Amino acid sequence: MEPDEKYMREALAEARAAAAEEEIPIGAVIVCKGRIIGKGHNMVERLHDATAHAEMIAITAATEALGGKYLQDCTLYVTVEPCPMCAAALNWSQISRIVYAAADPRRGYSLYSPNLLHPRTEVLSGILAEECGNLVSDYFKTKR
Amino acid sequence: MEPDEKYMREALAEARAAAAEEEIPIGAVIVCKGRIIGKGHNMVERLHDATAHAEMIAITAATEALGGKYLQDCTLYVTVEPCPMCAAALNWSQISRIVYAAADPRRGYSLYSPNLLHPRTEVLSGILAEECGNLVSDYFKTKR
Repeated sequence: MEPDEKYMREALAEARAAAAEEEIPIGAVIVCKGRIIGKGHNMVERLHDATAHAEMIAITAATEALGGKYLQDCTLYVTVEPCPMCAAALNWSQISRIVYAAADPRRGYSLYSPNLLHPRTEVLSGILAEECGNLVSDYFKTKR
Repeated sequence: MEPDEKYMREALAEARAAAAEEEIPIGAVIVCKGRIIGKGHNMVERLHDATAHAEMIAITAATEALGGKYLQDCTLYVTVEPCPMCAAALNWSQISRIVYAAADPRRGYSLYSPNLLHPRTEVLSGILAEECGNLVSDYFKTKR
């Protein structure tokens, strides 16, 4: 299995953990030099905190692990395209690379401004897009 | 003293606490029905976490105090215009009103997209702008 798929499967496992807790199922991991240094899943309902997105939790965990506020040389894997809050947080962290699975045609950062990300951050999308996207659409089907 | 000025002075006191800790001096308070329910100042260096902005800390504190993820009927007072991360976080919280003091001509959300905020959020700026803005510019002067 290619590394990008391998780590996206870890993010998907986080998303499934969110689903099990009745949260919108989105998961994220941050990888530095072949090692996962932060992971998280959406906890907005449990923490009743609108800022508790998977990416924010993973960023805080990763910077804690590194002991510094920057994530240069790191890749974030996330099951759904980041929202503007998470994109701008990733900008502050100067992360090197973002890999996301499913696009978010309602709340994705790219709908607002591509400048939300740091100019040096590379972006790749589409890996496991169907599997990760279906997890979210299935969640919303059960809520309607 | 008008309520807006009174609460902005509380945010300014938070900003001064940040300055005393060698952080970029920005402070925020969130007020609900005449009561401060969350406050915070920038802690990016201390927590080595790029997401630890004054507004994010205040949002988390306020939603914790309310026991819910929404901040409808609340006003955020912050000494500097929110960045895109904080603006988008405030969007998720559906906060009613934002009052900021100094504009941020380099990183303010309004440079990116006014749509980052929730369409129902009112914005007022300029209260104590000089005092709050000078605190930040004085900080950067000592760093150069």
